[in-house]
Formats: sequence, C-alpha cells, structure tokens
Amino acid sequence: MYIDNITNAQRAEVLTAALPYIKKYYGKIVVVKYGGNAMINEDLKQQVMEDIVLLWLIGVKIVLVHGGGPEINDLMNKLGKKPQFVDGLRVTDKETVDIVQMVLAGKVNKTLVNLLEMKGGKAMGISGMDGCLIEAKPKNEKLGFVGEITKVNIEPVTDLLEKGYIPVISTIGCDKKGNTYNINGDTAAAYIAGAMNAEKLFMMTDIDGILRDKDDPSTIIPHLTVSEAKQLYNEGIVSGGMIPKVDCCIEAIHKGVKNVTIMDGRVPHSILMELLTDEGAGTMVVGD
Amino acid sequence: MYIDNITNAQRAEVLTAALPYIKKYYGKIVVVKYGGNAMINEDLKQQVMEDIVLLWLIGVKIVLVHGGGPEINDLMNKLGKKPQFVDGLRVTDKETVDIVQMVLAGKVNKTLVNLLEMKGGKAMGISGMDGCLIEAKPKNEKLGFVGEITKVNIEPVTDLLEKGYIPVISTIGCDKKGNTYNINGDTAAAYIAGAMNAEKLFMMTDIDGILRDKDDPSTIIPHLTVSEAKQLYNEGIVSGGMIPKVDCCIEAIHKGVKNVTIMDGRVPHSILMELLTDEGAGTMVVGD
Amino acid sequence: MYIDNITNAQRAEVLTAALPYIKKYYGKIVVVKYGGNAMINEDLKQQVMEDIVLLWLIGVKIVLVHGGGPEINDLMNKLGKKPQFVDGLRVTDKETVDIVQMVLAGKVNKTLVNLLEMKGGKAMGISGMDGCLIEAKPKNEKLGFVGEITKVNIEPVTDLLEKGYIPVISTIGCDKKGNTYNINGDTAAAYIAGAMNAEKLFMMTDIDGILRDKDDPSTIIPHLTVSEAKQLYNEGIVSGGMIPKVDCCIEAIHKGVKNVTIMDGRVPHSILMELLTDEGAGTMVVGD
Amino acid sequence: MYIDNITNAQRAEVLTAALPYIKKYYGKIVVVKYGGNAMINEDLKQQVMEDIVLLWLIGVKIVLVHGGGPEINDLMNKLGKKPQFVDGLRVTDKETVDIVQMVLAGKVNKTLVNLLEMKGGKAMGISGMDGCLIEAKPKNEKLGFVGEITKVNIEPVTDLLEKGYIPVISTIGCDKKGNTYNINGDTAAAYIAGAMNAEKLFMMTDIDGILRDKDDPSTIIPHLTVSEAKQLYNEGIVSGGMIPKVDCCIEAIHKGVKNVTIMDGRVPHSILMELLTDEGAGTMVVGD
Amino acid sequence: MYIDNITNAQRAEVLTAALPYIKKYYGKIVVVKYGGNAMINEDLKQQVMEDIVLLWLIGVKIVLVHGGGPEINDLMNKLGKKPQFVDGLRVTDKETVDIVQMVLAGKVNKTLVNLLEMKGGKAMGISGMDGCLIEAKPKNEKLGFVGEITKVNIEPVTDLLEKGYIPVISTIGCDKKGNTYNINGDTAAAYIAGAMNAEKLFMMTDIDGILRDKDDPSTIIPHLTVSEAKQLYNEGIVSGGMIPKVDCCIEAIHKGVKNVTIMDGRVPHSILMELLTDEGAGTMVVGD
Amino acid sequence: MYIDNITNAQRAEVLTAALPYIKKYYGKIVVVKYGGNAMINEDLKQQVMEDIVLLWLIGVKIVLVHGGGPEINDLMNKLGKKPQFVDGLRVTDKETVDIVQMVLAGKVNKTLVNLLEMKGGKAMGISGMDGCLIEAKPKNEKLGFVGEITKVNIEPVTDLLEKGYIPVISTIGCDKKGNTYNINGDTAAAYIAGAMNAEKLFMMTDIDGILRDKDDPSTIIPHLTVSEAKQLYNEGIVSGGMIPKVDCCIEAIHKGVKNVTIMDGRVPHSILMELLTDEGAGTMVVGD
Repeated sequence: MYIDNITNAQRAEVLTAALPYIKKYYGKIVVVKYGGNAMINEDLKQQVMEDIVLLWLIGVKIVLVHGGGPEINDLMNKLGKKPQFVDGLRVTDKETVDIVQMVLAGKVNKTLVNLLEMKGGKAMGISGMDGCLIEAKPKNEKLGFVGEITKVNIEPVTDLLEKGYIPVISTIGCDKKGNTYNINGDTAAAYIAGAMNAEKLFMMTDIDGILRDKDDPSTIIPHLTVSEAKQLYNEGIVSGGMIPKVDCCIEAIHKGVKNVTIMDGRVPHSILMELLTDEGAGTMVVGD
Repeated sequence: MYIDNITNAQRAEVLTAALPYIKKYYGKIVVVKYGGNAMINEDLKQQVMEDIVLLWLIGVKIVLVHGGGPEINDLMNKLGKKPQFVDGLRVTDKETVDIVQMVLAGKVNKTLVNLLEMKGGKAMGISGMDGCLIEAKPKNEKLGFVGEITKVNIEPVTDLLEKGYIPVISTIGCDKKGNTYNINGDTAAAYIAGAMNAEKLFMMTDIDGILRDKDDPSTIIPHLTVSEAKQLYNEGIVSGGMIPKVDCCIEAIHKGVKNVTIMDGRVPHSILMELLTDEGAGTMVVGD
Repeated sequence: MYIDNITNAQRAEVLTAALPYIKKYYGKIVVVKYGGNAMINEDLKQQVMEDIVLLWLIGVKIVLVHGGGPEINDLMNKLGKKPQFVDGLRVTDKETVDIVQMVLAGKVNKTLVNLLEMKGGKAMGISGMDGCLIEAKPKNEKLGFVGEITKVNIEPVTDLLEKGYIPVISTIGCDKKGNTYNINGDTAAAYIAGAMNAEKLFMMTDIDGILRDKDDPSTIIPHLTVSEAKQLYNEGIVSGGMIPKVDCCIEAIHKGVKNVTIMDGRVPHSILMELLTDEGAGTMVVGD
Repeated sequence: MYIDNITNAQRAEVLTAALPYIKKYYGKIVVVKYGGNAMINEDLKQQVMEDIVLLWLIGVKIVLVHGGGPEINDLMNKLGKKPQFVDGLRVTDKETVDIVQMVLAGKVNKTLVNLLEMKGGKAMGISGMDGCLIEAKPKNEKLGFVGEITKVNIEPVTDLLEKGYIPVISTIGCDKKGNTYNINGDTAAAYIAGAMNAEKLFMMTDIDGILRDKDDPSTIIPHLTVSEAKQLYNEGIVSGGMIPKVDCCIEAIHKGVKNVTIMDGRVPHSILMELLTDEGAGTMVVGD
Repeated sequence: MYIDNITNAQRAEVLTAALPYIKKYYGKIVVVKYGGNAMINEDLKQQVMEDIVLLWLIGVKIVLVHGGGPEINDLMNKLGKKPQFVDGLRVTDKETVDIVQMVLAGKVNKTLVNLLEMKGGKAMGISGMDGCLIEAKPKNEKLGFVGEITKVNIEPVTDLLEKGYIPVISTIGCDKKGNTYNINGDTAAAYIAGAMNAEKLFMMTDIDGILRDKDDPSTIIPHLTVSEAKQLYNEGIVSGGMIPKVDCCIEAIHKGVKNVTIMDGRVPHSILMELLTDEGAGTMVVGD
Repeated sequence: MYIDNITNAQRAEVLTAALPYIKKYYGKIVVVKYGGNAMINEDLKQQVMEDIVLLWLIGVKIVLVHGGGPEINDLMNKLGKKPQFVDGLRVTDKETVDIVQMVLAGKVNKTLVNLLEMKGGKAMGISGMDGCLIEAKPKNEKLGFVGEITKVNIEPVTDLLEKGYIPVISTIGCDKKGNTYNINGDTAAAYIAGAMNAEKLFMMTDIDGILRDKDDPSTIIPHLTVSEAKQLYNEGIVSGGMIPKVDCCIEAIHKGVKNVTIMDGRVPHSILMELLTDEGAGTMVVGD
C-alpha cells in the first residue's frame, strides 16, 4: 500500500490531527447515499465500507442508503425482460418491481451488510418495506410501480441506531395494499436524512461536483447556498442529469438536513476526507 | 365467512375462553418455522399472518423463520439453471446461492413483512447475514454453498424483540470471508429457538403430524418425549423425510426449547388453535 | 356452556376477527364504572371480571371503579341504623361513613381484587384515601360526610398501572383533617377517567342506554354528542334518574375522556362486545 | 409540649447527633408490626405515625403491618355475633371473616393511611389479598377461616416501595378458591419481613420486653441470640403469651430478617429511640 | 456536650418536630457559600460539616461553594509575595493565581471533602476548571487574573448530584486559552445557585444579618424583597462591605434562586436552625 | 509540522488502517500513569493530552493518574523546606504533605484538566481523598505521612466514566482520622487499574523499556510474562530503580489488569502508537 513509507509517528500525528473533526461529528447523524462507480469498483467499495465502519466506531450515527447499480439490469437481461417506455420513462410492471426488490433487498443490501460486518462493523439491512419505513403511491399510473414517497416512518432507522447498528437501507417503498414500489435512491436518501435532521447527507456521484464549466474540473464550486444553487439553474450551469441531483439536495435541506455534499465517489476515501480533514471534496449545499 | 352465524355474545364467550391460554404465553418466546402449503395457498398465508399478528398483540414474543418454498425453483428455471447432484445432494454453486439470497431475503422476506404490517403488526425482516445472525461453513466441499451452522448470534433477534418488532428471518448464513450459504430452514429454526430458550417452536409441515400408521390419520401421536421419539426411529415409524424433521425437533429440545410441535400447516389457524384452545394439532415433542 | 357447539376453527376465526379492535385499544386507558345488576348477579360478575382480565392481558390499561351496591344497606340494617333525610337527601353521619368505608374498601374492593386474581389478573385495590387519590369537602353541611370532590391526585393510579396492576378503586374521599367522605361513584369515575385522559369510560347501568321512548328498547340512541345530549334534557328525553348519569358523561368528556358509553350491565360480556366487536351496546357520548 | 424549653441550638445538636443512625438505616428495609396500646391510645398512635413518616423521609424503606385491635370485637358485638370455641380456639365462620376483612382492610388500614398522609407521608394501604400477597389455607378445618400462610408474594410490597409509598398491610390471606382468611398479625409480619430480608422487624407489644423476672422491669434482657432465646423456653422465662411472640421472632430470623426487637409500644416514640439513639428499647433478638 | 441532659424521649420529640421542615426541603437544591469564621473556627467548621451531611442524608441536594479564607494570605506570606494594588484592587499576577489555585483546589477543597467523608457523607471536590464549570475573562486588564464570570456550565455539578455526591466547589475560573482566574466566591455561588434554580442559597458571613442600626443586633431585618433591599441602599443602611454581599443576593434571585439568606456563620448549626426549625437566622432576601 | 507532506488521501488511509485497533479498544478501560519527561516537556505534554482526548473520543474509557513531577520540589524549595531522611527515605511531615496536596490536587491536577478540556475532552479532576478513593495508613511511623494503600474505593472513578468524563487522579490518600498521605504514583496507578480490571495500564517512564543490556537500546525486551520478569530480577537485568517499577507491573497484573506497558514517555505520541498501530513501544508485561 502506498502509505507504507509513513512512519508510525506520522500515523499518530495524522490521527491526532483528526481530533477536531472527530469531535465535531461525534454522536451526529450522517446519511450516505451510496451508488455509482464506488459501488461497482471493488477497491472503492472496500474503501467506502472501511470509511463507514471507522465513522461508526468513532461515534458517528451513520446510515447507508443504497440503490441497485447495474445489477438490476443484469438480472432483467438474464430473465429476458424488454424495457418499455411511456413518455420517455421506463414502465415498471409487477415482474420488474419484483426483480428490483430481489436485487436491492436480497442481493445488494445483504452483500453490503456482510462487507460492513467483515470490516468490524455491526450492520442490519432493511428496506423501505420494513416497519413501513417508506410509504409510496404510483408516481404516474402509466408507469406502473414507479413510486412517489408519501410518508417516511423513521422509527425503524432510529431503533437500529439506538441498538448500535449501522442501518443499511434498500430504497423500495410499500403501500397499505401490499404493493411494492421502485423508489429513486437520491430522493429516498433526502427524505430519510431530512426526517432525521441529519448533520450531513452525502450524495455519492461519478462527477467532481458542480462545475462552473463542465469540462474544467478546476471550476468546481465548493460551497453553495440553496439560493445560489437555484440561481445556477437559471444560468444553465446546473442542467441535464444534474437537475434532479441538485433538486434532491435542496429538498433535503428543506426537510431538515444541515448540509448536503455532492461528492465524487471515484476518489478513494472521499467520505473520510470530507469529514475528517480540512480538504472538502465535491460541492457542499447549505441552507441560506 | 363461515362465522357469520356466530353472535357477538358468543364471540365474547370465545374470547374469554382463550384467557388462560393468553395468560400462559404472555411474554413468552414462540418461534414459527413457516413453510409448505401454508406458504403457497393464499388463504392459509393470510390466516397464518393473522395468527402471528394476534399473538404479537396479546404479548407473545413471536419470531417468524421462513424458507423459500417453490419460488427459488421458479427463478432458477427462469434463469435456465440446471440442477447438478453429488451423492444425491444438490450442488449449490455461487450463482445458485445468489438466487437463494435474492429470493429469500429480497422477495419472500419482504413480502411477509408487508403482509404482517397490513394485518396491523410491526415487523422487520432480516437474514442470517444481518448482525452475523447465522454463521456457517460448507457442509461438504463438493456441495458448494450448502451451509452447516457454526454459530448463532442471537442479539439481532432479541434487539428487534426489545424494540417491539416481529422479527422475520431468512435462513441464509454467512462467514467471515464474505460467503453466503444456503441453510436448511428447519435446522436454522431449531438453532434460533434453542438460542432463545423459546417456550415453543412450531414446525409447519404438510402432514398431520407423526402417524403410527402413515396411511391412517387417526393414528396420530399427539405427544412424544425425546426418548419416545428416538424409539420410533427404531420401530420404523419415523422414516424417510420425517427423519430430518424429527431430528430437528430433538435438536431444538437439546438446545433449550421447551417444546416443539410438528404441525399441519394445511389446517386453517393451526397456530392459534394449538396455542389458544384445548385442541392440540399435530405432534408435540418435549424433553424427557 | 352455549358455545360448546363452536368448533376450534371457528374460535380461531373469532379471535382473529378481534384483531383490529385489539390493535385499537392496545396501551390505551379504559375506565369501567362497575355497579348495578352486574355487581349483584353472580354470573354477570364473573363475566365482567373475565372481560377485565382479558382486556388487561391484551394490553389495555384498565381501571375498575366500583360503588357499594346493596351491601352498604345490608350492613346498616344489621347494625340497626335508621336513615335520616334532609331536603330529601340521606344524612351521612360519622357512623354511616365508617360503614361505607368498611363495606367499600374492606369488603367489596378486596372481593373484586380476589376475583380478578382468580381469573389470572394482577390487581391491587385502593381507595380514594390511598395516596390522597380523592380529596373532598362536605357537599352540604346538613348532609354530614357526603363529599364533593375538590381534587383528584391521579399518581397512585398511574403508579399501579406502570407496575402492571389492574387498579380497583373504592370511591371514598378524604381531606387534610382526617375525615372520610362518601363519594358518588359515577362522579368519581368521571373525574378519574378525565384526569387520565382515558380513551373510554364505561358507565355500567341497569338500562339499555338512552331511549327516545323509554318504554321501547328499539328507540335506543346509539351515539350522541355532548350538544345533542344537552338538547335531550330540553326535550325531556333525559329525565329523572338519567339526569345525573348523563351529567357525569358530559363532565367526563369535559375533563378529557375521549368517549363515554352508558352500557347495559345486564347483558353478558357487554364490555368485550363494545370494545372488541362491531356491535356497540348502550349509548355512546362523545365531544362535539 | 415538654420540649418547649429546648433551644433551637440544642435541637440542631440533637439532629446532628442522630447522623450516624440515619446513615446506618438509609435505604434499609424496616418492618413495623403495629398493635396493642400504641394502636388504641390516640397520643401514642399519632407519635408512631410521626416516627414512621420521619423514617420514610430520611430514606428508610418502612413497611407497616397492622392487626385489628379491639375494633373487630366492637363490630362483632354490635352485630350480635357470639364467640364459639373448638379446643379453646375461636371458630371463624364466613360471617366473622367478612367482619375481619371489613374492619382490617376497610377501617383500620385506611385510617392509618390517612394519618400517615396527614403527617406528610405518601402511603398506600393494601391487604394480603392484593396481588395475592398472602396465600393461606385453613389452619384447622374445625376453626373455619383461621389461616396458615402457605406463600408470601412480596412483589406488591416492593412495587409500592419502588414507587415511593409507605406500604400499610392488613393481615388477611387469600386462596385460589376465593376464600379469605384471618391471619395472625405477628406471623404475617415475620413472613413479610423475612421475604424482604428486612434489616429490622419491630414487634410492638404492651410489655417492656423479655424480663428475667416478669414482675421486675429492671430484669429486662436487652439482647438475645436465637439459641439463647430457645434456652429461655426451657428455663420457663419465656412462657404463656410470650411463647408465640418469641416464636415469631425466631421464625423471622430464620426467614432472613437481620434482627427483631420486641418493643414496648407504650413508650412514646419507641421506634425512633430504638433506631436513632443509643438507647435501645425492649429486647432485641438476632441470629447466632 | 451540652445536650447531655436531654433525654432520648426528648430527642425523639425534637426529631419528629423537624418533620415538616424535612418534608419541605426533600429533594430540593440548597447551595451553601461557606466562608468567614465558620471556616476558621474548628468547632464551627465541624458543625457546618455535620449540618451538611445531615441535610444530604435527609434528601436535600446540597452543594458547598467555598472561598479560601486566610490560607491564601498565609501561603503568599510564606512565599514572600508582596501585594500590589491598582485603583485600590489587588493585582493578581500569574504566580498569585497559581497560589490561589493550589490553596483553594488543593488544600481547602480536599480538606473539606475529607471532613464530609469523615462525618459519613459522600463528597467530591471540584473546581471551576473541572468540566469548564466556571468560564471567565479578565475583569480588568490591570488586575491580571482577577476573573469575571462569562459562563457557568452546570453539568458537572448536576452529574455529581445525580451520582449521589455532595459537590464541593472551589471558585476558580478558566478560559479557552488555558488561563486560570481568581473568582469572587459570593458571585460564583450566586451564579451556580442561579443556574440550578436552587431552592435556597446561604451566604455565610460574620455578621448577624442586615441591621437597620449596624450597632444594634436587635434591629435585624429578618425578611426583605429585592425591591426593599434596593431601597436600603438609598437609605444608606446597606453600605460599605455589605453592598457587594447584597448585590450577590439580588443577582442570585434574578438568576433563578428562590430565596437567599445572609446568615451568621458564627452561630453554631446556623444552617440546620434556618432549615429545620421555625427560628430563622440572619436576613432572608426573596423576589418581589 | 512534519506531516505537511502527507496528502489527505494518505491521511484517510492512515485513519482506516487504525480501524482494527480502534475496534479492539472500544469501550475498554485504559489507565495511563503519567509522569517523567512527558510531564515536563511542553510539546510532549500537549501530545499526551491529544492522545488521551483522541482515545476518549473513539470510545476508550481512559483514566489519567498523575504524580507531581518536580513541581513539589519547586514549592518546597521556595518555602525553604529542608529534606530530612530516615533510613535513606525522605521524612514527610505535616507541612510537606500539605505541600504535596496543594501541588498535586491544586496545581498539576487542574492544569491537566484544563489542557484536556482545551483539546476538546470533558475531564474532571479528583484526588484519592474524593469519595475516599484511596485509603491509606502510614508506611512507616518514622517517615510521617508517606502512605501505604489499604483500600481502593473505585466508585468515584466509575461514576465519572459513566457520566462521560476523563477522570484525572492525584495520588494522595486519606484515612478516617482526616490525615492525608503522599502515595507513590506508580503503586496507586497499579491499584486503580487493578480494581477496574483495566484492559491496559501504561507506565510512562524516561527509559526505552526493559533492556537486556542497559546501555544498548537495541536489546529492549518487547514482551514479558510475569514469570519471565521475576527471572530477570535474579539475572540482575531488572535492578536499581527498575525494581519498584517492575514490581508495580507485576502487582497490577495480579490485581486484575490484562497487560501493562512500561513505555518511553519521551517518544511523541507513544500512547497512540502503542494502541493504534502495530508498532509496540517499550516493554509489555502480561500474566503467565
């Protein structure tokens, strides 16, 4: 490993240098929306899990919210499911939502739990169906089981935190009629973090953050207020796929999160660096 | 419904007649191994869920352990997986154990959770991987990921009970290397019930119980001690598929369960009848 | 018993049919003012006690408030006490209030406690003197120790509930000078239920409920708001002995009870039927 | 009052002189069997109540067990009940035990509770029927409802102590068939104190203590071991009415009480003097 | 001792006479600012400690705040420190504040703790530096380390009370830069008592209380409101050294103390007499 | 600082590399005997305090035991105290022990508390007199107030840990007569760590550890069992000033400490390096 040339004395210095940051986040709630490359690349995945367990050990109340990455597509392909679209959006029929449920709550969720346990953490994996965590309704009848969140019952998450677990959450929703819904992961993370008045929400992406010139990483905007973010829509700087991402940040702030960071999940240990050093990564959005 | 002709006065009588049974199980741990027809037939499934929620409401600490029923086979078929056997036992390769994990922890588990919530319960679905509940090792190297339980960490289950949830458990196991194992559901239920010193373990089956003459339901043996059960092996009365089932009962008693009932899951509300009336169902096994 | 012809399967159906009602009252406070025929008729008494214990077992926080029935008169007769009246009201001298205290707190209270224990409950009997539960002053100097409630200290009742007992309360009051007062049972029940913001108060009587035509049980009014009840005074439908009874209902609502039911104690298991089935009994009064 | 000539400075000295005694009994369980003259004489009664409340306030866990004094006889006389005897013992028929229950649990108990409350204490009065505190069976079939204790369920008493009350206990017993029994007060106190491993049991009597020469108070024996006490039976020094009293002391020690004092209830504030000064009163019995 | 001629019966009377006062202060917070003669005279010191332990034993939550008496001067003299003054106030250089810290937190504090332990109490000695109890800044740059309180963090005191200790507090302050400050003891006591909403603050002094004619003890003013106290400034009755003392009383009332007594520490057991008898000592100041 | 050339990515790696060590000591009790150069050199002092606060933040239950370093001598010199010796040991008269008390409990203790608070910790400083933590008797009458520990009452330390403080302990002792004793710091640390069954005791010294050749640091013995340590006495490898130090290690192990490390306090961050990296420092002694 490339830290082999660091002496133990230097290691100790590094650890004590983290003191004020550890103190700052001790006992605070931090929600991580995990996805993208950091979920596919095996090294990055291992590092994210290490970061989560470290934060858990030093007293941060960490919650991991995950989407499904490409594994849903994989299983759909294997099962020969052909995508159908209405108004440009994918139709999620019963069979598809079953696949989503199996991949998210069965495969991805449990694999993450197992990784966290192997790193020394104590994790429990749940979905939006457990304890009716995420209640939903159809977003649009034509789209089938694509869900819009109607209510978040945060008790299952706080119960697990009280018992000392790292809650790992699959973003599927349920309703009182027994239906399951596919829920957008970023939105779910924003709702959950908001309901818990989280100190911080990390939105892991595969971009550097918000760039003033999207082709020049040096133009990254490190810090934004909600008002400034809205202004960026008008200026066309936030556009395309960034719009729903930034919408989620703003929604999270409105629902009670202290600050949200759109973070580059491709950078090793980006969570730790953001929380425990003076070098922020990506773009942080805060209230006005 | 066929109780329409029962007056409310009679209903009240029935309720108060259940008093001594309610009192007996109040605050006690009861583990239900759910499977077979009761998991396939929609009416039976609804009734089992009603029974579980009722018991939970009247103060029984109920734990639901489930297998996967035919849904694992369904998905394997759809994915074109061909069964392979070694010494007459199915080889479970990595792909197969992934399917098992997805179906059990993703599909069946969450569907049961949702049903319990719809009936008015508060449920949380976990697997043997959450909080390292079930640790396992390969039973036989040739069989791949067929697991033998090495350790049960019961804390996740007791944590959920303390927080007021009905724990719903998928019987997959894990090890410290990140492997997942397919675990026999009856065995897992016996280990879990034993680790909790459960008052009672229900083994739901599609048979009447243990019959002295397997073709004559009237020869059912309602009550057996462990010694008597062992004697039945010698007499050939317990044979074939019944052997592992009765083995599990004996194992559960040895591990600390007060009594185990092999119960006919095809009978509506068989759990309630066994617990709350004077009419036992199936065969009860107790220590000597 | 007349439920002998009900099968165990039907019993199970009846039990699960009670599920939504059990859920509704789980953890809620229900106060029962017990009196009249249901206190004299041995069968009815047994059934009321069974109902109370059942409700207690399924998690209702039940409080039993009782008067003295005819036993006070019995002892007075035996002791040769002659009734005296002022303005048509019975004068309660020191000797009489001692008799009331002995019969209520000594005889009736302890006998009810014992019955509840025999049915499987855990009960503790107290009076308005214990923990200064009911403080009173003379209602009218000429009447002696007939008391008017000045204060209810509800702590003794909540202490017993917290410790898991069914509180059984004799309605006698005390003051800071060491006097004991005879307190009207209905009024005491209304004050106690109000102080606890009870979910429900049952007023057990020997009538069907409030009838529009007092000679025709089919004219029963099943549901009344406080305003509607007041209107019935004007219409003369609530009159005579019903006036103080309905006054108590209204008082209870004003003091914080969610709803009050004037219930026919002559009907077997009337409490259970009201709480656990869809068939209400008597007349329910609620706030506007 | 005869302490009018004591200055406040002296009062303060007296209070601080009690310091080591207060410290010794802080948080300890002390059971007082209250009876005899101290229950009849109004001044003595007031002083006992003051002593109890003072001990309660300074952190002693005090439990008051009372008999009925002459009030049972009073009511029996008024009701024209004639005593019947078998083998020299009073026959207690159903009517008599009802009278006992009414006088003890209804009259004496509540009056003591009220006195304690007036002195500033927080008291709750229960009987051996509440929470099945005292279970009993007939001592001798010919005697009717004279009870022999079969079991003491101490939970109701500890529950009240935990909630901060002074438990006041009437010594009547119950069985599972609904019968009530008249229980000897000294025996009940010994059983209750034993079940709680009380630090001290006071047996209040109308004698000086155990005298070597029963006509000479100066021959009082201040301190006895159980063995020495048994020796006194042989010597005839413990005889007649003293025998059951001393039996109770020995029984209490055997059941777990640290020490028992046979105390002269005719001496004002005898409890306080025994506990808070260096002047013991009566005869103290301890284990060998 | 001069109470030798008091009988044990009289002692018991005295103890029970204290009942209403004990009841009044049970569980209440009482802060004692200890200083003056009562700290120098060995007999008085012993008596104050006895009073404190007695109050602690009878359930008062007592907090002892102390200054340093003449011991600071002693050590300064021994070390040859010469006093310097600016504007008539003593300059406290680094060396002096070190001496103050050593004498207060090292000598006086621990000696008091030891005395309380010897009397049977359970005490823990802390200073304004522990848990940042007293944060301060320089009162006047020219005076060096004479501190003005900027913040009181009362948590260390409540933590010790919860754990059952008598907190003994040295009045030195700290800041975030590592400086120590000499804090006026009366002011610190007023701030601490205020932050705890104490029931009572005792200001121990070497005067009788506030006298209308300072040469005539019989003109003591036993009771004052804050407004009346302020009026006394104008009348010149509060003047000289009394001004800061009375300022502290008023400050304490404003910060939330129920009442403050300026008490004559030269009178033996003055605290007990004030709290547990009907004879108030000194001058009590209350809100308007 | 010499870690300026370490990137944040490397910092993150270093932090996660500490994961297994953090996990190992989470919730465990670690006692640090602080003294020697690490107490005099300002940089080392700051680093030790940082290490302590870091360990506290990551969930170690850390206890700091300190001696007085050269500050006691300083004050003695200033006060003109001349050392006296008996049998080669320093006589500690009343005046000397007062100086020790003032310097340890007043100066050193509070200064350490303040440093810990400034680094972000929550600390409370106590001495062996608080809560009678260290009871002692004279070691040798001729030596005056040099104390030998007779009893350790660990409750004050566990109370502070439960309330979340870092206990900082001055090693002075007390007896029931009000005497103060000067206690050897190493011995006190061994007793305290033993009474708490600490996971680890650090003995900070100014040597490398135990060297096989005292002039050659490369001959350090990194790991010793108690038996091996005793053998080193015989071999003369442990000799002179090392004897009492090693005696303390052995005593600590006997009293219940899991392991003791004689550590070189002159190495920066030696505590962190020992606990959180794979590079042990000094000599570790464990049970056989």
